[in-house]
Amino acid sequence: MSSNVLPARRGVLGLALLTALTLIATHPAFAAKRVFEMNIEDTKITLVERQQFHTFAFAGQVPGPLFYVDEGDELEVTVNNLTALPHTIHWHGMFQRGTWKMDGVPDVTQKAIEPGDSFTYKFTAEPSGTFWYHCHVNVNEHVAMRGMYGPFIVRPKKPTAIEKKVTKEFVLMLSDWASKWADKPGFGGVPGDVFDYFTLNGRAYPESEPIRIQKGDVVRLRLIGAGELTHALHIHGHSFQIAFKDGFPLPSPIWADTIVVGPGERYDLILTADNPGRWMVHDHVDSHTMNGDRPMGGMMTVIEYTEIKSDDAWYPWNKRVPQPDFYYQDAISKGPGIYTNETFRGQAVQ
Amino acid sequence: MSSNVLPARRGVLGLALLTALTLIATHPAFAAKRVFEMNIEDTKITLVERQQFHTFAFAGQVPGPLFYVDEGDELEVTVNNLTALPHTIHWHGMFQRGTWKMDGVPDVTQKAIEPGDSFTYKFTAEPSGTFWYHCHVNVNEHVAMRGMYGPFIVRPKKPTAIEKKVTKEFVLMLSDWASKWADKPGFGGVPGDVFDYFTLNGRAYPESEPIRIQKGDVVRLRLIGAGELTHALHIHGHSFQIAFKDGFPLPSPIWADTIVVGPGERYDLILTADNPGRWMVHDHVDSHTMNGDRPMGGMMTVIEYTEIKSDDAWYPWNKRVPQPDFYYQDAISKGPGIYTNETFRGQAVQ
Amino acid sequence: MSSNVLPARRGVLGLALLTALTLIATHPAFAAKRVFEMNIEDTKITLVERQQFHTFAFAGQVPGPLFYVDEGDELEVTVNNLTALPHTIHWHGMFQRGTWKMDGVPDVTQKAIEPGDSFTYKFTAEPSGTFWYHCHVNVNEHVAMRGMYGPFIVRPKKPTAIEKKVTKEFVLMLSDWASKWADKPGFGGVPGDVFDYFTLNGRAYPESEPIRIQKGDVVRLRLIGAGELTHALHIHGHSFQIAFKDGFPLPSPIWADTIVVGPGERYDLILTADNPGRWMVHDHVDSHTMNGDRPMGGMMTVIEYTEIKSDDAWYPWNKRVPQPDFYYQDAISKGPGIYTNETFRGQAVQ
Repeated sequence: MSSNVLPARRGVLGLALLTALTLIATHPAFAAKRVFEMNIEDTKITLVERQQFHTFAFAGQVPGPLFYVDEGDELEVTVNNLTALPHTIHWHGMFQRGTWKMDGVPDVTQKAIEPGDSFTYKFTAEPSGTFWYHCHVNVNEHVAMRGMYGPFIVRPKKPTAIEKKVTKEFVLMLSDWASKWADKPGFGGVPGDVFDYFTLNGRAYPESEPIRIQKGDVVRLRLIGAGELTHALHIHGHSFQIAFKDGFPLPSPIWADTIVVGPGERYDLILTADNPGRWMVHDHVDSHTMNGDRPMGGMMTVIEYTEIKSDDAWYPWNKRVPQPDFYYQDAISKGPGIYTNETFRGQAVQ
Repeated sequence: MSSNVLPARRGVLGLALLTALTLIATHPAFAAKRVFEMNIEDTKITLVERQQFHTFAFAGQVPGPLFYVDEGDELEVTVNNLTALPHTIHWHGMFQRGTWKMDGVPDVTQKAIEPGDSFTYKFTAEPSGTFWYHCHVNVNEHVAMRGMYGPFIVRPKKPTAIEKKVTKEFVLMLSDWASKWADKPGFGGVPGDVFDYFTLNGRAYPESEPIRIQKGDVVRLRLIGAGELTHALHIHGHSFQIAFKDGFPLPSPIWADTIVVGPGERYDLILTADNPGRWMVHDHVDSHTMNGDRPMGGMMTVIEYTEIKSDDAWYPWNKRVPQPDFYYQDAISKGPGIYTNETFRGQAVQ
Repeated sequence: MSSNVLPARRGVLGLALLTALTLIATHPAFAAKRVFEMNIEDTKITLVERQQFHTFAFAGQVPGPLFYVDEGDELEVTVNNLTALPHTIHWHGMFQRGTWKMDGVPDVTQKAIEPGDSFTYKFTAEPSGTFWYHCHVNVNEHVAMRGMYGPFIVRPKKPTAIEKKVTKEFVLMLSDWASKWADKPGFGGVPGDVFDYFTLNGRAYPESEPIRIQKGDVVRLRLIGAGELTHALHIHGHSFQIAFKDGFPLPSPIWADTIVVGPGERYDLILTADNPGRWMVHDHVDSHTMNGDRPMGGMMTVIEYTEIKSDDAWYPWNKRVPQPDFYYQDAISKGPGIYTNETFRGQAVQ
């Protein structure tokens, strides 16, 4: 059994609401029932340096809590809307067999959850693979501009040969932001927007985080296209196998050094760590390596092998203090559960 | 033998022209000769609500008539240019073996068809699969902004196993529009344009049309990237097989829930209808779900299972009167032929 | 042994520097050592008509010299920075086993090469396939806007069946330019830029070059996404096999008539020349066929079969004088070596 408790929710809109969120999970032979509750909260996060953004954050964090569950698990997720706008949650890719009214599309499968209201989603985790969840109201703003997404991973009953060999897993949610709308909740995310910030798990370089591995690792990178734009992630010093698309194993993995990830898509890459060094990982859309008008930022990080010292004076991350569980790797290593992540918690907006 | 008759063409440029269009088709063992004539006409169509667009419409409709022919059929298509600008027709993907001068590229394979002039394209339908046709003059305006395209499907002599199982077919042409140029024929479709309308077969949500299926159907969705932009179509509640690209069967179909369609590309998806419900289908490029500056529009539709009632008061399509043959499904079910479609006819522009 | 000599470099920054560049190569059974030296020079190139662009050109040319080497070759490349800004060279896709400090990423694997300074990259050519090199400093400007890239092809020890059949090879580097920054070196390539010029190997139609083949050829097109944008290249009159991605053979080639190439990606297409004619090749992103605000330019060319006369009066290329080695085809046909290319040399900027 695993359990998570979220911090007491903050009063919003003068509503008296629950003050704690609870997760209950049991692990029978094939499936667990997992109960979770989370708020949607007005939250200010920092993308990089002084660039903040007003978000409608699941459990007050961007990206949201990790759902890492077993195939066949029964989920029961109550969401409390503490913001001033309507929302829903769509569980992107879940089949929702027999539960189409849990699919989270306003005016199609349910009425939107109004400010102050709650809704409980009940569904079975199916199929297995890398998925995600996001709001489905005014997605042009709520998804593209307000950080309303999180990773949803379903562990398969029958893993493929390739995924059995994995020693380390990392989740990378790719997003892009138009700073024009940073402080204008309820507006923005419109045709013609200039996207000028680009993040991995909500942070832009140099405030993103190294991916730390060691020789011999078999690394799984779970990429999730969570924003408006398409990104072309290039990994230096290695080839990798594109092994899964949208959670499903490819009939034959494809070798590559650059992977194009469109909005809504997921790709799982398998990379064999056989080449110690310090290796750039970045979007090859050139302007996506900027923070506003400053170059060498944006959607970039570095694969650091533990065998290689990081103490070059000119290396910006030569004394970097790790941000806990930045790629959800520690949570995943603990096994199935629903995990909040303090690293991604923003600042409350009253 | 099938036959289509188009309405009398409207006088344009003071030319005395034919007043009826005729299709003649015969069906020998392996191939038919199909003769068709169509005008290119200045036509005003409605994308959604009050947003109209001046188009140069094949047979006065956007998208244009469906060509659904057999592999090896001999085509003879006369096009009459009733507009004030030069045009051609390129039959995208047709091999044109021995007939390269029928390929429809101005100044490369032919001189453009001037206003008031006609041209007859004669070629064999090869290869089989999902193709399309479009003007090749000033494509930045004529294709991207004026709706000069239509579906061109060639039925194979030897269908693959997967396509033999199909019970229902739908054609979806994906397009995008910059409203700035709506009323300025002869101009627009230039670098820097803001595309702010996004359509399936020329209509944006909520004026697009549900895709109606029932449990047990094997559905083939023929997607055609007909516009300037790339779209990431996501289907809820199902996975599907990406079975064909550009008309050709993939060596192994790829399972997915989101398909990225670039300009000029076609993808045929096979979806098994095993999950009754009401399921969103939409572009995951978030801003492509807008109509101008209003959210929850654009490139969206809903798969409706006939098993599910549509009478929820809050469902926008709870009393929707079907638009005939919106996805060309009825025409395809009739077998090979060339089909005009009243649903897509616009309003004459004098 | 092959050898290339570049013209004497121009004095820059008052430095006394080498006046000639030398390539030394030997061909042992499995690998050669190849030594090359090149300058980075402020150079003005012409994209099309009067549209010039200030570039930081490798060996004074855009694209840069062709590296066509054998798998396992030892490379030693000295680069002299004759410009006023810092640079590096990243050898995109090279594994750099044991040589990660040769990977060319400023502040991660090395300090940038300052103006007037030199750096020698030493590494082994591995793996085989279609690669490229580019600057890794301020890529938003230096790569996207200043032409700092060239093709890097590694011939495999064990070619695949399909590539053994190839009779002609062509390299196409796809790029896009924002004319706003043409004369502003040190600036530009920023979010919101309007890209309005689109080139194959640095030239836009009609100043690009036909691809000349003959019936019976097995053609390999090596496409390299070298710019900021994604392009959807469509070839008329043929299908082709997408045979390699990022240098690696696909498990099964995919048939197509349109190939989407993202930034940083490479695709090798195999096209069987069985259909004599004059066939358009162009980006299907419609506005990418413009030169600024003029249509029918940009990323377009024509496949010309030698069997077909080019003398139609209305064909713009009816009397075209070939630009030598425009697709690096002659260099490749000579076998491994490092080749400068006079066709791509620009004009010195003092």
